[in-house]
Amino acid sequence: MTNFTLEPMGTTTVGAGSVAEAAQHVRAHGNRAFVVSDPGVRSAGVLNSVTDALTSDGIEFTTFVDVDPNPTDANVSAGVGALRQFGIEGTVMVLVGGGSVMDCGKYIAMAAPSGVDDLSLAFSPDLDDADKIDFNTIAPAAQVSAPCVPTIAVPTTAGTASETNGGGLITQSADHRKLTFGNPEVKPRAVVLDPMLTVGLPSGATAACGMDVLTHAIECYTSTQSNPYADGLALQAIRLTGQWLPQAVAEGSNVEARTSMLIASHLAGRAFSSGPLLGLVHATGHPVSGTYGVAHGQTLATMLPHVMRFNQETVAGRYADVGLALGVAHDASAAIEAVEKLSATVGTNRSLSDLGAKSGDIAALTTDALRDMIILNTPRYPSREDVRALYEIAM
Amino acid sequence: MTNFTLEPMGTTTVGAGSVAEAAQHVRAHGNRAFVVSDPGVRSAGVLNSVTDALTSDGIEFTTFVDVDPNPTDANVSAGVGALRQFGIEGTVMVLVGGGSVMDCGKYIAMAAPSGVDDLSLAFSPDLDDADKIDFNTIAPAAQVSAPCVPTIAVPTTAGTASETNGGGLITQSADHRKLTFGNPEVKPRAVVLDPMLTVGLPSGATAACGMDVLTHAIECYTSTQSNPYADGLALQAIRLTGQWLPQAVAEGSNVEARTSMLIASHLAGRAFSSGPLLGLVHATGHPVSGTYGVAHGQTLATMLPHVMRFNQETVAGRYADVGLALGVAHDASAAIEAVEKLSATVGTNRSLSDLGAKSGDIAALTTDALRDMIILNTPRYPSREDVRALYEIAM
Repeated sequence: MTNFTLEPMGTTTVGAGSVAEAAQHVRAHGNRAFVVSDPGVRSAGVLNSVTDALTSDGIEFTTFVDVDPNPTDANVSAGVGALRQFGIEGTVMVLVGGGSVMDCGKYIAMAAPSGVDDLSLAFSPDLDDADKIDFNTIAPAAQVSAPCVPTIAVPTTAGTASETNGGGLITQSADHRKLTFGNPEVKPRAVVLDPMLTVGLPSGATAACGMDVLTHAIECYTSTQSNPYADGLALQAIRLTGQWLPQAVAEGSNVEARTSMLIASHLAGRAFSSGPLLGLVHATGHPVSGTYGVAHGQTLATMLPHVMRFNQETVAGRYADVGLALGVAHDASAAIEAVEKLSATVGTNRSLSDLGAKSGDIAALTTDALRDMIILNTPRYPSREDVRALYEIAM
Repeated sequence: MTNFTLEPMGTTTVGAGSVAEAAQHVRAHGNRAFVVSDPGVRSAGVLNSVTDALTSDGIEFTTFVDVDPNPTDANVSAGVGALRQFGIEGTVMVLVGGGSVMDCGKYIAMAAPSGVDDLSLAFSPDLDDADKIDFNTIAPAAQVSAPCVPTIAVPTTAGTASETNGGGLITQSADHRKLTFGNPEVKPRAVVLDPMLTVGLPSGATAACGMDVLTHAIECYTSTQSNPYADGLALQAIRLTGQWLPQAVAEGSNVEARTSMLIASHLAGRAFSSGPLLGLVHATGHPVSGTYGVAHGQTLATMLPHVMRFNQETVAGRYADVGLALGVAHDASAAIEAVEKLSATVGTNRSLSDLGAKSGDIAALTTDALRDMIILNTPRYPSREDVRALYEIAM
């Protein structure tokens, strides 16, 4: 077993009504708030529950909601400008939204104090002759030179678990490539998991996010850098997702189902963020969402069974455990079938063509998958031909 | 589901050789070290691996090793005296040992700055007319009035998981009663889990500690205050214990088994310390170890199957999950049998009489069990007669 380190995680409050504690979390780390969100969260009225808490507590704040799904360098630039105008001294960033808002907010928190407003702090590696990440090309163009702004996370979806780490993805507009960034200083200092903020999420988005949770847990559990802490939480996230996702999708107002999925998402995040990270499902999914603007979780749901079949021989024992956690049998094939059945139940069993992907794009998607840093811990490292074949099967 | 909060846990480094990082953890929280340990740990040479790391780093330190198994008010008094003589300013306490050292060290860290050197900061509740904890009698006689000394934990056994919280037990010499204390400030700021420090532990102690781990996980998983985070880690601890404890006992130098048990202990601790706490096995076990000086884990191993049968109807579904985690069947009776089989395999299947308990003491043991605060979250709250019957069955 490899040595590993579990870093502290911010105080995490869980349960209906816990959004009321957002203000006290701000007070613990500053005295004014720059709230990042998106138009959908605002129009659903969810943003109000946070700003009401800040207002009640007399905390000065402003809101910035210009974050797109699959956020871009343009969102970063606008956010850095707005934050610098609001002022950084004493400011805590409160990130209210799904993975897009949280990733964008964390990048802004990292970049603004250093006077950066583009993607020069992100990793943008090239491939070596063996189609693997070339570590000689991995260094970002710029460096963080000033302390980051503290962040607090208030997730409004049960999916990306971006609240559990200091990393994320921003899409480079010029070529739709999703670039990775990471800085432990922007890991949220506190997390509020209030299921009431998620009850209004439409069933399609709920399903896509839920399949993101499942993928996080399965990829973490089969990572080459897995550890027993992550294993326990990943299996628990799989159990909860298998048990509660169909109900959260079918009956969005079911608070127990919403609570369970929000916790499942968070536990899967604590798991993969403790070191294992993810794998080939994410690596092949990212270029699809970046290129076609498809929901991240949906692209994962599309790729997951195909990648599991590709990995099956290498990690059959681990997939068998997944089968048990999904309530079927201690068997790898049964696990893959259970994943496919769950995806069909919640309506995410869609092909790449269904998502608008074109065969002519596969070569470009393949290159982007191979140079996505998230591929590094995947259990069966794919060749270019392997990735191409996976995309073709998924069409 | 009840709302719950996950508080940050100190940086935790896991793996062979991680003891070398003890010095840098001290530097993160102070500049000199008061090392607490016991004669057994010292004579086994384990203490040296820590003091060598401090010496290499040029950190001024002293050692205090006067901690008994099931530590007492006398140990506390001596430790407070030694710490005050060494000086508190800039001092970090490094706790190198099993649960006794860690509990005693944490109490000293809490008491010394407040000028307390007795058990007046501990809970010492009486019973109400229904033989339940009387909350009107729960307030400690004294209060903490100054910041506690920061602590760092270096466990040398895979058992109590005292490194995961700010609480513990100290035995009151006058009546052998184990009193509970708790203060979040003495929760270790950093934890070093180095399996090489545990390879020399004799098989009997290894077995008793391992049954402590199993009991933590099972009581946590069936607590009235369980939560899904704790559930995931508890089941993982059960899986690891079922898989690795026999080997850790039979072949103490097996580093993989030692690593797995040290992690299992820690995960069970993170689980119960996140809110669920424990239950009736601990409540009935504590008076036995306090009265007869028996190893804590052995008393739990003795009581565990009896308490499981007592609880079985109330938490049959949860015990079924335990059965699955132990690799038998999803069935409560199978789980209890598997626990008994594991205990027999590692040699902890001993009766209360084997441990030196006398029938004439049962009335006193029963009172102490009922007024042990750890009873509060037990799934089936026992009457006085229930506890007496459990002790009689276990004789």
